Amino acid sequence: MRDALVAAAFHLFLERGYEQTTVDDIVALAGVGRRSFFRYFPSKEDVVFPDHERSLAEVTAFLADSSDDHDPVLRVCDAVRIVLRMYTENPTFSVQRYRLTKKVPGLRAYELSVVWRYERAFADYLRGRLADRPDGTLRADVIAAAVAAAHNNALRSWLRSDGQGEADDALDHALGYVQSAFAGRPGPEDAEKPEEPEDVVVLVSRQGAPLWRVVQEIERALDRGGDRTRPD
Amino acid sequence: MRDALVAAAFHLFLERGYEQTTVDDIVALAGVGRRSFFRYFPSKEDVVFPDHERSLAEVTAFLADSSDDHDPVLRVCDAVRIVLRMYTENPTFSVQRYRLTKKVPGLRAYELSVVWRYERAFADYLRGRLADRPDGTLRADVIAAAVAAAHNNALRSWLRSDGQGEADDALDHALGYVQSAFAGRPGPEDAEKPEEPEDVVVLVSRQGAPLWRVVQEIERALDRGGDRTRPD
Repeated sequence: MRDALVAAAFHLFLERGYEQTTVDDIVALAGVGRRSFFRYFPSKEDVVFPDHERSLAEVTAFLADSSDDHDPVLRVCDAVRIVLRMYTENPTFSVQRYRLTKKVPGLRAYELSVVWRYERAFADYLRGRLADRPDGTLRADVIAAAVAAAHNNALRSWLRSDGQGEADDALDHALGYVQSAFAGRPGPEDAEKPEEPEDVVVLVSRQGAPLWRVVQEIERALDRGGDRTRPD
Repeated sequence: MRDALVAAAFHLFLERGYEQTTVDDIVALAGVGRRSFFRYFPSKEDVVFPDHERSLAEVTAFLADSSDDHDPVLRVCDAVRIVLRMYTENPTFSVQRYRLTKKVPGLRAYELSVVWRYERAFADYLRGRLADRPDGTLRADVIAAAVAAAHNNALRSWLRSDGQGEADDALDHALGYVQSAFAGRPGPEDAEKPEEPEDVVVLVSRQGAPLWRVVQEIERALDRGGDRTRPD
């Protein structure tokens, strides 16, 4: 029934245009009553985005199910993959909707408010995880916005290619950029507290520096001055 | 006339509520005709945000007036300061509107669409500036979203404090975080093309790596294999 209503709605939206289609037209084509329509969809706009509520619930549950062992940025990146999957599960439908949304300003506004709800879900989760860090809410908000923007960029490319190409790969690539900017990145106030000090050493050196100074610094950083294993 | 309409509208919105106030009520209180209202504002929603069009035009003109010498990220940060100024110029009005917007979902949706237009202006400018760089549109979209989120974070703190405190300082701080993440940062595809290859070498190493491998990599990076000057 729900799927039949969506199918009927899109048939009419594409044939006559969104504004020219009424809920009465949709239920007539689907062969059901108005009450059935409103049981599933609060408004005509909602039938255009029939899967967002489910997807948003899935994202929220996924984030609620996180442990402290999860890297918060990576976790939000995994959450946004759930959103993309909602689109890629049905490429034809997603591409049709994209074209419709571009033409109808009211639908674009609706979509913005949906995107904002995903972003809020990411930000809420990140605020919790970063609560005890300096600028926790600032970071949470900025990272959530960056993840959402990366998703939208990858999604839009895929929709513009008519659902051809590998959306997942495009998203991975886009998220890679966000991760490179934020993952484990200290904020302005705790630059002296790197997140994984025992794992990775980053050395920055002017090329003009003599090599022995560079090696000395590495030895100091690795705390291995008396334990060199160079084979020559 | 325009200011009188805004004042009358807010007087009624605060007294009776937004939904309960009609355009007729507003023009009656302001002592003008309906046509005067619609000459200034396309709809009742628009009177809630009377300065965004001007501010958006100012932002767009500011970005259009940029030269290639401007760092694109810093330029967008300066652009978003214009938006904040629109709020801080009139703290009482901004705080009243904030409270109103929180209560009326339709106004929140309207505000989202306004924020989105600023973000698009930032992204369009950045896309132009980063067009010849790998992932130019991706970076542009992500950085624009991050700048907008930083602004919104600083603005919200200020509004929640009833317009007390230094909004400019909060914004500078928030933008500092965004700048630390993105300014001059290479993207995923040009990690092998650092922006100043003759100046700085960055080495990333797992601590578990044997030192001789680390040194070998440095030698390779510095292209100095046969020219060691270590003093021991």
